[in-house]
Amino acid sequence: MTSECSPRFLASDNTSGMCPEAMEMLLKANHEDDLAYGNDRWTARAADRFREMFDYDCDVFFVFNGTAANSLALSAMGRSYHSVICHELAHIETDECGGPEFFSNGAKLLTSPGANGKLTPEGIEALVTKRSDIHYPKPKVISLTQATEVGTVYSREELIAIRAMADKYDLRLHMDGARFANACVGLNATPAELTWQVGVDVLCFSGTKNGLAFGEAILFFNRDLAEDFAYRCKQAGQLASKMRFISAPWLGLLENDVWRHNATHANAMARYLADGLADFPRVSLMFPVEANSVFVELPAGAIEALKAKGWAFYTFIGAGGARFVCSWNTSTALLDQLLDDIRATLNV
Amino acid sequence: MTSECSPRFLASDNTSGMCPEAMEMLLKANHEDDLAYGNDRWTARAADRFREMFDYDCDVFFVFNGTAANSLALSAMGRSYHSVICHELAHIETDECGGPEFFSNGAKLLTSPGANGKLTPEGIEALVTKRSDIHYPKPKVISLTQATEVGTVYSREELIAIRAMADKYDLRLHMDGARFANACVGLNATPAELTWQVGVDVLCFSGTKNGLAFGEAILFFNRDLAEDFAYRCKQAGQLASKMRFISAPWLGLLENDVWRHNATHANAMARYLADGLADFPRVSLMFPVEANSVFVELPAGAIEALKAKGWAFYTFIGAGGARFVCSWNTSTALLDQLLDDIRATLNV
Amino acid sequence: MTSECSPRFLASDNTSGMCPEAMEMLLKANHEDDLAYGNDRWTARAADRFREMFDYDCDVFFVFNGTAANSLALSAMGRSYHSVICHELAHIETDECGGPEFFSNGAKLLTSPGANGKLTPEGIEALVTKRSDIHYPKPKVISLTQATEVGTVYSREELIAIRAMADKYDLRLHMDGARFANACVGLNATPAELTWQVGVDVLCFSGTKNGLAFGEAILFFNRDLAEDFAYRCKQAGQLASKMRFISAPWLGLLENDVWRHNATHANAMARYLADGLADFPRVSLMFPVEANSVFVELPAGAIEALKAKGWAFYTFIGAGGARFVCSWNTSTALLDQLLDDIRATLNV
Amino acid sequence: MTSECSPRFLASDNTSGMCPEAMEMLLKANHEDDLAYGNDRWTARAADRFREMFDYDCDVFFVFNGTAANSLALSAMGRSYHSVICHELAHIETDECGGPEFFSNGAKLLTSPGANGKLTPEGIEALVTKRSDIHYPKPKVISLTQATEVGTVYSREELIAIRAMADKYDLRLHMDGARFANACVGLNATPAELTWQVGVDVLCFSGTKNGLAFGEAILFFNRDLAEDFAYRCKQAGQLASKMRFISAPWLGLLENDVWRHNATHANAMARYLADGLADFPRVSLMFPVEANSVFVELPAGAIEALKAKGWAFYTFIGAGGARFVCSWNTSTALLDQLLDDIRATLNV
Repeated sequence: MTSECSPRFLASDNTSGMCPEAMEMLLKANHEDDLAYGNDRWTARAADRFREMFDYDCDVFFVFNGTAANSLALSAMGRSYHSVICHELAHIETDECGGPEFFSNGAKLLTSPGANGKLTPEGIEALVTKRSDIHYPKPKVISLTQATEVGTVYSREELIAIRAMADKYDLRLHMDGARFANACVGLNATPAELTWQVGVDVLCFSGTKNGLAFGEAILFFNRDLAEDFAYRCKQAGQLASKMRFISAPWLGLLENDVWRHNATHANAMARYLADGLADFPRVSLMFPVEANSVFVELPAGAIEALKAKGWAFYTFIGAGGARFVCSWNTSTALLDQLLDDIRATLNV
Repeated sequence: MTSECSPRFLASDNTSGMCPEAMEMLLKANHEDDLAYGNDRWTARAADRFREMFDYDCDVFFVFNGTAANSLALSAMGRSYHSVICHELAHIETDECGGPEFFSNGAKLLTSPGANGKLTPEGIEALVTKRSDIHYPKPKVISLTQATEVGTVYSREELIAIRAMADKYDLRLHMDGARFANACVGLNATPAELTWQVGVDVLCFSGTKNGLAFGEAILFFNRDLAEDFAYRCKQAGQLASKMRFISAPWLGLLENDVWRHNATHANAMARYLADGLADFPRVSLMFPVEANSVFVELPAGAIEALKAKGWAFYTFIGAGGARFVCSWNTSTALLDQLLDDIRATLNV
Repeated sequence: MTSECSPRFLASDNTSGMCPEAMEMLLKANHEDDLAYGNDRWTARAADRFREMFDYDCDVFFVFNGTAANSLALSAMGRSYHSVICHELAHIETDECGGPEFFSNGAKLLTSPGANGKLTPEGIEALVTKRSDIHYPKPKVISLTQATEVGTVYSREELIAIRAMADKYDLRLHMDGARFANACVGLNATPAELTWQVGVDVLCFSGTKNGLAFGEAILFFNRDLAEDFAYRCKQAGQLASKMRFISAPWLGLLENDVWRHNATHANAMARYLADGLADFPRVSLMFPVEANSVFVELPAGAIEALKAKGWAFYTFIGAGGARFVCSWNTSTALLDQLLDDIRATLNV
Repeated sequence: MTSECSPRFLASDNTSGMCPEAMEMLLKANHEDDLAYGNDRWTARAADRFREMFDYDCDVFFVFNGTAANSLALSAMGRSYHSVICHELAHIETDECGGPEFFSNGAKLLTSPGANGKLTPEGIEALVTKRSDIHYPKPKVISLTQATEVGTVYSREELIAIRAMADKYDLRLHMDGARFANACVGLNATPAELTWQVGVDVLCFSGTKNGLAFGEAILFFNRDLAEDFAYRCKQAGQLASKMRFISAPWLGLLENDVWRHNATHANAMARYLADGLADFPRVSLMFPVEANSVFVELPAGAIEALKAKGWAFYTFIGAGGARFVCSWNTSTALLDQLLDDIRATLNV
């Protein structure tokens, strides 16, 4: 990551810091002492904002990070001998170091392929019907990621079709919303339209990728699943004593639709980058750009050249593949630099 | 907790916010984007400061909260069929909702009484020798809390005697340092003198109670126990993606000995309160005041009267017992108010 | 355990072998091949016999041993952040090496004292009401042992009073029936009268201690708790592939009331021993003899003298305490020898 | 499974009962009372026989079944954040309902394809080198099945090559020996030649499939991994109180090489069946017959026709695939009947 210039970050939306509105609320929350463990002046208010935002009387819990949010939600949705159906590229499968298996005490993830990083009803059905004996974990949960790991989104129609499959086989529906805000913007949909209205039982909504330092919200639209969930969070080391430093910044995102503005900006920057790359020779998009990520195939040597110039980005997607993720604070200036550097690399 | 006046907090050192030096570093860390998962400009630096502070080449990990720190450390120090010896008032026993049992997948806590909240060599030996068959979990770890849950401290001599018992029975030594800074100040000892020099294998050092919003450090002086520990943290939902927002504030505590100043202040405030209470009739200290907590026995009615006046504090210690915990930002003004209110309650 | 004479066993009812009726059925089941995993000609039949015996349409599962039976049942009755209330002498607390904690992934056992090894409603209530915050595991299950670890039995009245307490606090009721047959005989009660009729949700009924080589039955009177329990057994390594070698011997116990005859004999032998000891000087019974165990306090030196003569028995009960357990095959001849040896030891 | 004739079993080697030598020892062990938990006259002797048989001073433990044996061994060989490399058809992956994940509290299985059900060094290396970051479980164990799930065997050369890969990447080597006896016979090799001599750390050796009712042996050639393993077994519900009923029948297998005779017979029967099928039109073997299983592809309708005639066998292997497993008591008469019935089905 060393270069003459300082690093230039498009590696992930978690290289950005806190957005101003979140920081302002954090500073406010620091003005006075307050009660611990969520009994403060901020936490209940943040939970209420979520209920307004989703137009639903859901149960809301705050935890520290995304692995914990997903893992705790999944462990509440099934038991150790159940299985969770997810896409083979799902974060819970590829990037949480066995967190879901650990928190659930052994639940198995059953993975399915699917174009553009998306589960399909057929793929789900194939996994559910493959086995029905007690020698194999019983499918209990579908977990889908909205927006997906490759920057695409599930349409409402796709979500409804997946919910129908869940109903057919008595499965629960979990949504990993690490980039849920970007999906809402990408689909021009309300949070309600993409969650409880299409039968999502539990949503893990990321604040970290939307402009916080830490803090994910777990929303139970199926409130039966939230029974005693506060105990689960506490036992699993996810109850913040100074909870207000999670919930107050969340208020910064939730009030005045800052979450949507941040996501709108990030998505627009991804679009800007994709458009800028459109005419480059030997460069092709790997997936539709529907949220805030751009996956591109670059010619041999280009990735090394860009890294040498100080660009920080991931290349885990296969030979020649690069992922650029835009955030609430990504600038066109930065993207123009990137486009210039790619152009130079390509000798265009 | 409602009253005409706003609440006045002496419930715990986690009702205070961030101290200025920690906040300053958090704001600095927010100036620029940075790499995720601890590969930033702050985390390695903070770990180095710990190594200097302890004068030891220990392994350092940052996690979100104290339950996680203790539970992860203990799970690395033993296996599911081992047991952990601790005081019957230890936080891991009484206030972590089975976190140690959960993270270790079933390790049992064996509790011992002991004056002033402290384990004794005899108490440890009694537990170790009670059973030696495979029908009972095998003792593997001693966990002690420094300062203790009742505001006392283990002297170096006491620690050395406990370590001798650990050696005798091949046990590992864990220190819950939720108020370790206060213990160092209370004993006028260096961090080294209270840890590796007396044979502590792993220390969980709390930043939250010393002036951070979140973030505990786990220090492995016995580095063999830290093998693959980064994976453990990740799997257990304790690897912060924006790690710099934990590590940079820690730098605010570690540089210029702010941690010690904060603890010195808190301890001094506890002493101030204890001294103020000394001449009150029908009020007696329940434990020696050696760190930042004051436990007092109050006459009937006094607790309710104080709560009615907006004082927030815990009373879980038995009939008439109240706990007041001082923090980096507790003021003599606040304590004078408390003393006045107690005096009024007592009709002195 | 070495002595001139061969060992003479009164250590536990698990030093006895298989009773003839169980062995006969095992031999029969070995005559022909049969389907695995309980789909054989014996398993369904044994389950039906249980349903007849209890006069209840309960769900029946067979597992290998008592630790597994109790642990699996308890893990189905609560979750990791729940707690199980039991007597401080309960086998799940003292002799299963943390099995319940392991299978449940961390549930805590809360122990209560109580005369004659029995939980009391008051003791239960004290544990339930001690804490009601999320920092401590939430009580969810009461586990009682019938007959108890000290050879006493809960009367129907006592069971009803405990069930009332369970109802008051929304707790489930588990019965460890390691010596359930002996309790039925001791109380001259039917199995139904001691279980579902008094609100027991789940019973673990031991075959091993009643004349089998292995094999415990878990009976769910509350069938909701048995949902997917077969998967739980399989995952936990408790589904026997050659299940018929557990279920067929069980038929040997269940048909013709052999289980009751075996228990009747064992209880009678305990009574015989107790009566024989009644007039001995310096020998006193520690607990009422209500099932098949006799706990006696012996004068100094007597225990060593008896062990030197080849008697195998446990002495874990405190200074001078010895436990003698009678079984389906304990003979008066053996007990007369023991009485003679004790008499000799006492120089009577 | 209903038909005019009684069922005829070739479904698995666990449809057979106990072999006479094992039964004889079980009956002997039942003649007298004995100490519980393995302190009897049989268990140490059986363990010694294993040490002689393998010509190695290994640690030996007995557990109830194969899922438990594999899961306990694997959990002792790694920790929750580690991964286990196995073939995609491995029993631990496909038929233990998440047992390894449960006992290890979350370890992930990484599966590899491979011809004839066998892992290859290249396949292992591909999995190990795919990821090396803390967001994915760290490979720690290779688990291979000998004989494999499809009735083939690893040659010594193949085992040595896999061990070399294990050494290269610091991995431990586990062998699922559900049909280890059949592999020894198939390869005409000694137990030592196929285990510690080629670097196997831990072997799970099945007695159930070789002629017992229950009871698997776990052999630790790497004795460091066996530290406190007896506690692990106890906690996990795998310590038999009447242990002699596992260990004495094992003696029946181990003395006079009965284990080898049983496996020799079973393998010969599989060969007999395969030879008989060789000339049948439209019937083809799916895998080389190297142990006691025969996998055949049958024409449409044949499977249903055979099942209608009362044949019990598995067909999970894909369209038209049938698995016939021979055992210590499979007779040529039975196989001749099967061949006749297949011939009739084929209208040959």
